[in-house]
Amino acid sequence: MKIRVSRKEHFNAAHRLFNPAWNDDKNQQVFGKCNNPNYHGHNYELIITVTGEPDPETGYVYDMKVLSDLIKEHVTNKFDHKNLNLDTEYFKTLNPTAENIAVVIWNILREKITPSLDLKVTLYETERNYVEYPAH
Amino acid sequence: MKIRVSRKEHFNAAHRLFNPAWNDDKNQQVFGKCNNPNYHGHNYELIITVTGEPDPETGYVYDMKVLSDLIKEHVTNKFDHKNLNLDTEYFKTLNPTAENIAVVIWNILREKITPSLDLKVTLYETERNYVEYPAH
Amino acid sequence: MKIRVSRKEHFNAAHRLFNPAWNDDKNQQVFGKCNNPNYHGHNYELIITVTGEPDPETGYVYDMKVLSDLIKEHVTNKFDHKNLNLDTEYFKTLNPTAENIAVVIWNILREKITPSLDLKVTLYETERNYVEYPAH
Amino acid sequence: MKIRVSRKEHFNAAHRLFNPAWNDDKNQQVFGKCNNPNYHGHNYELIITVTGEPDPETGYVYDMKVLSDLIKEHVTNKFDHKNLNLDTEYFKTLNPTAENIAVVIWNILREKITPSLDLKVTLYETERNYVEYPAH
Amino acid sequence: MKIRVSRKEHFNAAHRLFNPAWNDDKNQQVFGKCNNPNYHGHNYELIITVTGEPDPETGYVYDMKVLSDLIKEHVTNKFDHKNLNLDTEYFKTLNPTAENIAVVIWNILREKITPSLDLKVTLYETERNYVEYPAH
Amino acid sequence: MKIRVSRKEHFNAAHRLFNPAWNDDKNQQVFGKCNNPNYHGHNYELIITVTGEPDPETGYVYDMKVLSDLIKEHVTNKFDHKNLNLDTEYFKTLNPTAENIAVVIWNILREKITPSLDLKVTLYETERNYVEYPAH
Repeated sequence: MKIRVSRKEHFNAAHRLFNPAWNDDKNQQVFGKCNNPNYHGHNYELIITVTGEPDPETGYVYDMKVLSDLIKEHVTNKFDHKNLNLDTEYFKTLNPTAENIAVVIWNILREKITPSLDLKVTLYETERNYVEYPAH
Repeated sequence: MKIRVSRKEHFNAAHRLFNPAWNDDKNQQVFGKCNNPNYHGHNYELIITVTGEPDPETGYVYDMKVLSDLIKEHVTNKFDHKNLNLDTEYFKTLNPTAENIAVVIWNILREKITPSLDLKVTLYETERNYVEYPAH
Repeated sequence: MKIRVSRKEHFNAAHRLFNPAWNDDKNQQVFGKCNNPNYHGHNYELIITVTGEPDPETGYVYDMKVLSDLIKEHVTNKFDHKNLNLDTEYFKTLNPTAENIAVVIWNILREKITPSLDLKVTLYETERNYVEYPAH
Repeated sequence: MKIRVSRKEHFNAAHRLFNPAWNDDKNQQVFGKCNNPNYHGHNYELIITVTGEPDPETGYVYDMKVLSDLIKEHVTNKFDHKNLNLDTEYFKTLNPTAENIAVVIWNILREKITPSLDLKVTLYETERNYVEYPAH
Repeated sequence: MKIRVSRKEHFNAAHRLFNPAWNDDKNQQVFGKCNNPNYHGHNYELIITVTGEPDPETGYVYDMKVLSDLIKEHVTNKFDHKNLNLDTEYFKTLNPTAENIAVVIWNILREKITPSLDLKVTLYETERNYVEYPAH
Repeated sequence: MKIRVSRKEHFNAAHRLFNPAWNDDKNQQVFGKCNNPNYHGHNYELIITVTGEPDPETGYVYDMKVLSDLIKEHVTNKFDHKNLNLDTEYFKTLNPTAENIAVVIWNILREKITPSLDLKVTLYETERNYVEYPAH
């Protein structure tokens, strides 16, 4: 009787896509306008999904207030109103694509949530582009 | 060639979270403002998902009009504009968390839909909090 | 060069519509399922709109962070996870229709915002029902 | 380390549901108002989901700009502002239910996307009715 | 103390834009893909706004249930799952642009709502295109 | 018989709020996290509203395809995937608050749309913060 519970949070950040191993032409060819050297930005919508059995005493799989606080403390407080490339430790050398941001967030939260619960990250970069990790 | 088809309905209800086996302090500590003795409420968005093979004569897995009527007759007519704790048989002794409401709705509809079709319930308590049962 | 700036907040509350001057039959006839004596509830979406000229030094008509804090302190902290009829001073004798809730919120905030700025309240009771006060 | 990436596009089309093997009464009985001989229409929201491992050089599972162009070239340019029954090759004899449209779109795109990547189609016929293919 | 109250309904319809006084080339040049002779379609979202003073006994400007029924009886039952050009009396000779549909709906409802209340129609043809009548 | 027609477009951009006449402490105090020297960003949703009488031959106040192209050519192509402070001529010395961005966009488009038509700009910086210019 496993149930999935999800909490949606958001953060607004600037980023730039590029691969430092490539020259400018190659970066421009691959990443196009996302490669703007002065950065652009997004309102990221972040959904954290936790799967497990509800506690018979509370009826909760996970207290949504606790999950919201956890996301704010460990994720959105670090990323909100930041330049992902310059202001965070995670994307100094890692390209901040939606895929990579989702994996970074999963790694951060995986340590904070008891291993008996499954964890999934969904990240909307725009209303029309989003990613999910892991895929199942 | 299995396909999932989903129908979204909604109901507006009052509820209160608490565990009658606990004293007031413990209930307040665990459920916080959701434990308000005079109740609060939500616009619940309910998505019912049915999975199966489309009928070759109709091209339907399930007629969405029939599914909508089924949800209204057996679920939303019972829950809409009600106090879940006081006005429904289901939550007299069961805590009406989103998790428990989703399981109750699944149990109600599972009897009404032919067993060869899989059934899943998604319930949004708010735009930012939602649950899915079963988890897969 | 007047500009309108708007901030969206939300609160979840229970309420019951009825007129204490009427008998039960009349209340049921007029308010239907909204008259449920055990209450029902909604996720209210609240938009506060302030109109004025932007400050030339900040480029702001009103700092949205300040407006958000003001709405939380004076409105949503009082109404969120409450029973509007029982738990608030405003609806002890006033019927908590969306119209009346909007006027109450306008009166609360009108005192907190400098008179040179126009004020408007938009309140969504559901995704499909909403009110605006004042009308212009 | 598989990730799912999704791109949302849309098209507006007319259609009529009916089975040419049935007489008018039977079609009316099964398909109701969707059987209107003069057609009705929808704003279809289409989500294409591709699953695979991100390329270590780009951080992309699939370039969303390339995916968007692929969907436009092979799907929405053929279906947008069209009568699905009369103007497309796909629904001359196949009933254009949401289920069948999703399978047709999956078949079109499956040939254009490298087989090592999983493909899924989600199609919203209305805000409240949608289908997913394949089901897993 | 005037308040605006709004109710959102929807209908799904097919239509074709053209001017019968023009030849095919001119129609194609002006209306482009909206001129498809076999029609295309939309999920129309319709918002009806009524402005007046709330009744002191009910706290309502207009009972939203009554307004919803009025819209269904006189508007959406006539337009939903129809071909606007072929199946309705209103667009036999009038081009069914969003502008003209909004004016037609306003004229229908203006007769049904007491003249002391202002009436406004907002019509979304797509999520990104909408019209409002009257303009003030 | 004036009608308002609206077209929604979007752009993703980085920006930083600050007043160069102030020192760092004052900028930090007034603009808080929006003052991050490395920028942050948003998905801006832009609605352009044009008001006038519909052309009796077309039934259009303004061709939405033409309006969309105009917005793309003169606004979103200049702002999308840009750093508003560094990459645009408009915000070299003007603080890119939502208020100021809306006025800049209005000034750009006012020259491109015939003076007999009224023009209004609505700009969502986030789902919960938006501005409208002019205010009426």
